[in-house]
Amino acid sequence: MTQPDLLSSAQLAHSLQLLHQQTPLVHCMTNDVVQTFTANVLLALRASPAMVIDATEAAQFAGFADALLINVGTLTCDRRDAMLAAVEAARLAGTPWTLDPVAVGALTLRSAFCQQLLSLQPAAIRGNASEILALANQTAGGRGVDSVHQADAALSAAQQLAQAHQTLVAVTGEVDYITDGTRTLAVAGGSPLMTRVVGTGCALSAVVAAFASLPGDRLLHVAAACRVMSLAGEQAARSATGPGSFVAAFLDNLWTLEVAA
Amino acid sequence: MTQPDLLSSAQLAHSLQLLHQQTPLVHCMTNDVVQTFTANVLLALRASPAMVIDATEAAQFAGFADALLINVGTLTCDRRDAMLAAVEAARLAGTPWTLDPVAVGALTLRSAFCQQLLSLQPAAIRGNASEILALANQTAGGRGVDSVHQADAALSAAQQLAQAHQTLVAVTGEVDYITDGTRTLAVAGGSPLMTRVVGTGCALSAVVAAFASLPGDRLLHVAAACRVMSLAGEQAARSATGPGSFVAAFLDNLWTLEVAA
Amino acid sequence: MTQPDLLSSAQLAHSLQLLHQQTPLVHCMTNDVVQTFTANVLLALRASPAMVIDATEAAQFAGFADALLINVGTLTCDRRDAMLAAVEAARLAGTPWTLDPVAVGALTLRSAFCQQLLSLQPAAIRGNASEILALANQTAGGRGVDSVHQADAALSAAQQLAQAHQTLVAVTGEVDYITDGTRTLAVAGGSPLMTRVVGTGCALSAVVAAFASLPGDRLLHVAAACRVMSLAGEQAARSATGPGSFVAAFLDNLWTLEVAA
Repeated sequence: MTQPDLLSSAQLAHSLQLLHQQTPLVHCMTNDVVQTFTANVLLALRASPAMVIDATEAAQFAGFADALLINVGTLTCDRRDAMLAAVEAARLAGTPWTLDPVAVGALTLRSAFCQQLLSLQPAAIRGNASEILALANQTAGGRGVDSVHQADAALSAAQQLAQAHQTLVAVTGEVDYITDGTRTLAVAGGSPLMTRVVGTGCALSAVVAAFASLPGDRLLHVAAACRVMSLAGEQAARSATGPGSFVAAFLDNLWTLEVAA
Repeated sequence: MTQPDLLSSAQLAHSLQLLHQQTPLVHCMTNDVVQTFTANVLLALRASPAMVIDATEAAQFAGFADALLINVGTLTCDRRDAMLAAVEAARLAGTPWTLDPVAVGALTLRSAFCQQLLSLQPAAIRGNASEILALANQTAGGRGVDSVHQADAALSAAQQLAQAHQTLVAVTGEVDYITDGTRTLAVAGGSPLMTRVVGTGCALSAVVAAFASLPGDRLLHVAAACRVMSLAGEQAARSATGPGSFVAAFLDNLWTLEVAA
Repeated sequence: MTQPDLLSSAQLAHSLQLLHQQTPLVHCMTNDVVQTFTANVLLALRASPAMVIDATEAAQFAGFADALLINVGTLTCDRRDAMLAAVEAARLAGTPWTLDPVAVGALTLRSAFCQQLLSLQPAAIRGNASEILALANQTAGGRGVDSVHQADAALSAAQQLAQAHQTLVAVTGEVDYITDGTRTLAVAGGSPLMTRVVGTGCALSAVVAAFASLPGDRLLHVAAACRVMSLAGEQAARSATGPGSFVAAFLDNLWTLEVAA
């Protein structure tokens, strides 16, 4: 394994500037718990969130949208069917779609669904170490997930997953790794308070979906998505006295974020 | 077209005082993304929000409530059926109900449903220019929506819609117009930050529903609803550094709002 | 009726310390409106929230979780069935589960369901005076609910309910009473602003579920859950200028809460 590259400030500034110019319309099919926060994160970054969930409407909307997010938290059979309809419409329209495989592995409905989704060419996958290990191991024939949560093991799994499905994988934690199976970038930063606010990971997946719709080098854009969130997180942690004030400061920092090139 | 009137401070103070006295119970059948914010906006204004969504329970509850809100964002077939049951119960009980036709026009399920709802005597309709144009044009035989978003064009559509269905229409944006088809009021104010927080429009519809339940001149009360929100928005923008701090300041300002008569 | 006891600072400190050590995984099947706030309250207290709602997945997850919360706000028939599956799995696994009977009494679907749930051995029930009266009176043969909302009447109902179903009942309001039918504790404090923010009661039920999973005297732990919330509420009210700033301060205070033994 070669050493991951770091994202340059110039690339970060370039990707963020592109996002501000393009203001992509992001169709979010996500879980019940994080919808408001996800929408507010996208709005703070000048993207446009839209949540459309009926199967017929979701398929119609995937044709208008610039990006689609599929997040399997609070999955039900109805939502699975609507998500499938949206993914298929997105593929027909050439709209890139991003998968957040929340808690894949232990729960059967979402595990089977995530395996099915892997064959439908996601542009990017964003998960934590356990989720990426679970996704990759099922593909490769299965080891147990609970015993291995090292970032390095997850990085190998991420690279394997990216190569097998010709996609990008962002495995995020204290350090985020973003890989296409050949090239790998590492993004550090953030704050432990991000784990004390619900939805920071899910919102990151929506931001990945937004950045994945930009023209240019998608791997660099997705790494920029991770860095935008970790940067706003470390800035917010400086002024916050707890997770309540952190949320407001985090959104404010996403809004005012300027990156010197 | 005659020039719209402005809402007087005395009327605004009167309507707000009435709301504080009556503390209406507002049954909100609204979309997944904005439920918490909608409830908190109503609570800050001393109204009582209640979200009841099962068809049978929603019909029961529409009889107790002082007002009903129907918002078609994140519509599904099940929710449509429950909303219909609630609207029918509300009409039987004489409870005024308000329609927010989110994204009507392009998406088929909600477009057909909104047309159906128009025949069920809403007390008020609150939407943005595109939504009001889409609603009115389908009624009148259809022009394209995407090309016309001028406030003036939407105002004509709003007046036409109000007359055709004997209802009030609030078409909101940088300036809000509130019309019964004959009389029209204009409300200015607000802040661009309101468009960077999810749910300000949807919450306004719930506030319209609350004010529409007050005794007296409904057109003036609905204009007061629009002004209460734009006033809290412009006050909050003065202290906010971004959309995160804006949300907290907005709710605080709704809570402390006092209007000199 | 004997005079309720007060919770000692030493017991409060002990229960909170245990919670911080155990960081219980709380499976929340709760209503649409309060999910984000509930999750953030649990996270601020170092517990781990998880929302899993499909019937099959919910039954699987109830086996992993340390506690289960069933909140019947925004109930539907599908959710009822999934909640039943989760409760049955929790009972098999020995996972304690807590009931929040939101608005039980007037609405038929949830009223029938809450009566059914009472026979499935909840570890604790948390409701306001009207809800506890409705639950207890239906059990006992029914009086009207609307005429009686005195804390004392609700306390008797709570004691009767706890004895009849061998459970704990927390009836909360300006003063909270926590009883197992024999012993009763009273917890004061809090702030009127807590009633101007949606979900403080529902989140308290999730906190009750978390504390009910701790080893030791469950009655004292549940009283500590009530006191933790009222303490954070009175602290937050000191710095808040309205319900918006209150929410952030409330979560910050839960996070920084330290109790001298």
